[in-house]
Amino acid sequence: MNMKSLVTGLIILLTGCICKAQSNQSSAAEDFKPSTLNQPGQEYPQVNSQGYVRFKVKALKADSIRVTLGLGGHNGTVLTKNAEGYFVGTTAGPMDEGFHYYHLIVDGGVFNDPGTLNFYGSTRWESGIEVPAHDQDFYALRDLPHGNVQQVLFSSKSTNTVRRAFVYTPPGYEKDKSQHYPVLYLQHGWGEDETAWSNQGHANLIMDNLINEGKIKPFIIVMTYGMTNVARMGGIRSFKVDTFQRVLTEELIPFVDANFRTKADRMHRAMGGLSMGGMETHAITLAMPGEFGYYALLSGGTFNSAELKDKAKPRLIFMSCGSREKPDGVNNAASELKSAGYNAVSYVSPNTGHEFLTWRRGLYQLAPLLFQN
Amino acid sequence: MNMKSLVTGLIILLTGCICKAQSNQSSAAEDFKPSTLNQPGQEYPQVNSQGYVRFKVKALKADSIRVTLGLGGHNGTVLTKNAEGYFVGTTAGPMDEGFHYYHLIVDGGVFNDPGTLNFYGSTRWESGIEVPAHDQDFYALRDLPHGNVQQVLFSSKSTNTVRRAFVYTPPGYEKDKSQHYPVLYLQHGWGEDETAWSNQGHANLIMDNLINEGKIKPFIIVMTYGMTNVARMGGIRSFKVDTFQRVLTEELIPFVDANFRTKADRMHRAMGGLSMGGMETHAITLAMPGEFGYYALLSGGTFNSAELKDKAKPRLIFMSCGSREKPDGVNNAASELKSAGYNAVSYVSPNTGHEFLTWRRGLYQLAPLLFQN
Repeated sequence: MNMKSLVTGLIILLTGCICKAQSNQSSAAEDFKPSTLNQPGQEYPQVNSQGYVRFKVKALKADSIRVTLGLGGHNGTVLTKNAEGYFVGTTAGPMDEGFHYYHLIVDGGVFNDPGTLNFYGSTRWESGIEVPAHDQDFYALRDLPHGNVQQVLFSSKSTNTVRRAFVYTPPGYEKDKSQHYPVLYLQHGWGEDETAWSNQGHANLIMDNLINEGKIKPFIIVMTYGMTNVARMGGIRSFKVDTFQRVLTEELIPFVDANFRTKADRMHRAMGGLSMGGMETHAITLAMPGEFGYYALLSGGTFNSAELKDKAKPRLIFMSCGSREKPDGVNNAASELKSAGYNAVSYVSPNTGHEFLTWRRGLYQLAPLLFQN
Repeated sequence: MNMKSLVTGLIILLTGCICKAQSNQSSAAEDFKPSTLNQPGQEYPQVNSQGYVRFKVKALKADSIRVTLGLGGHNGTVLTKNAEGYFVGTTAGPMDEGFHYYHLIVDGGVFNDPGTLNFYGSTRWESGIEVPAHDQDFYALRDLPHGNVQQVLFSSKSTNTVRRAFVYTPPGYEKDKSQHYPVLYLQHGWGEDETAWSNQGHANLIMDNLINEGKIKPFIIVMTYGMTNVARMGGIRSFKVDTFQRVLTEELIPFVDANFRTKADRMHRAMGGLSMGGMETHAITLAMPGEFGYYALLSGGTFNSAELKDKAKPRLIFMSCGSREKPDGVNNAASELKSAGYNAVSYVSPNTGHEFLTWRRGLYQLAPLLFQN
């Protein structure tokens, strides 16, 4: 896999400077509305119809507030103090559609925007904002049958801990007690945790909507912490997957198969992940090809036929990324794998980078390809 | 119910000044450890063996940081800037055992402590800290069979929304498909939401531990948003319970009975709540005595025999509070109800006020009394 582009992507993720690079707009339309991810009753931050974001933070005696979101890379958006003591400011241009992490630098300290909900990313609970995407319907909360997201606590002897996972069970799971389901093990990225795929990713809503439209056969999704923060800032290259591999394959999978109505065999078990979760997927599926029948890397590198040779053949290899990442990477890898006789699919998310809209779209493309035969 | 003491309790909750009033200690033991509610890898805030809390916040260019937790009432703890630009400070005395909400005032702005996890209270996601309680074992995470906390999304025609609830299903729920369970509908307090009883209250762990010790028969707990923030700051007296009553009794209960293996009758259905959730319990059980067979008010007022007269008789009336609230209120109410022939029980949590350790202990006392006949 391409480690350099992955690390570059992670650095972009950390600095929060994902933006529409070609934007030259100098003024924003005055149709700002509160972000859908604001805390109850909070008016700011706001987003306009073009994707500009406006911030307003109260700190009467502060000297400076900078937001780590905006054009201009690492500098983000500098707020200015108005006559009432509020710090206000608007991004210099429209942000990419979708979800973005950010925080405030208040007089030199790192704090969250008190207006927004928090999301775990960059190894901290960050502020989050949503720029409405033109295709947001596929992950919208609608009035239709919904699956549940269950917090489960499982015993891990290998780490001597009780560990947490979230299990998405599809609509109808509680009612038809005879049905058994395939399972996708779905990993978050570096600096995130087991909450990311449902909180930021809306994985449950994507599934509910696809199932309601009859576009997929229902399956279970299991999300747990990939222990990726063992290697903290700067230490990604030294990350060892072994500890997590044991938790996943020797502890979590048996727990899920014992406690949920799964189809407990390789051809009904998939592994996928975003960014560093893709790296984990790559390593674990190659190390244990008998465990999983479907592999998915979302902005998480590529497979090649040489490394797969002489191993149990997967039914699908899915590789995706945003158009602002390295689309040639996943497209070329899929071509190479197809030439070698593999069922490989690549997908490139339009006008997005190393960020959650890319991965929501990736899951939306992936789900119909899983467990169909 | 005693509205005045309830409002006083809410004000105490808001200002975060709950503390051991009699403390005269002038110096803290130097055995501080990171709070168990810190974000991963964060060293501060810390708590010592006596219950003092120490804060350390980086903000090189800030002029002042005050923490809304500490002795001295509303003023909390003022931090002082050290040579490295960190703001540091320790509460002037030990805090009550258990969970406390707080936030920072940084140069006049309200921000969370970047060191801690966040918890929804006071109508915002607040910083949280845990002062280890001498009896913390009853809500500790142990290596034993655990129930699940399931996020469910249900359709509410009366409010034209899709609403969220959390459903605790006990260990074994997934395995023995023939067993049906009683249900406790358990409400949060003012300014909180449906996440409070599991995040701050550890309701799931309290149940797991009680079940593991054979002290209770397993039951389901359902937690949803009581819509208490419709009346925001200062408007508590004008709160009308009708809208929530309809969501609960006409929409959520039928949904739960249709989607979980419940015993769907009055004698296997309880309602309880803390603080304003107790107020809701009081109002809804009196309005619809045919719905619930067990009533529980945790720091949420009292019942009297006059208001219960000529209504279907509950099997249990449980009333509790902290010793720093008004223990005479719940004790006298229980005596009066017992004289009138009701099965009434009061419980007073030692050395606590209007705060979550009181309510954790309340649930621990309540659970063995529910659904036993």
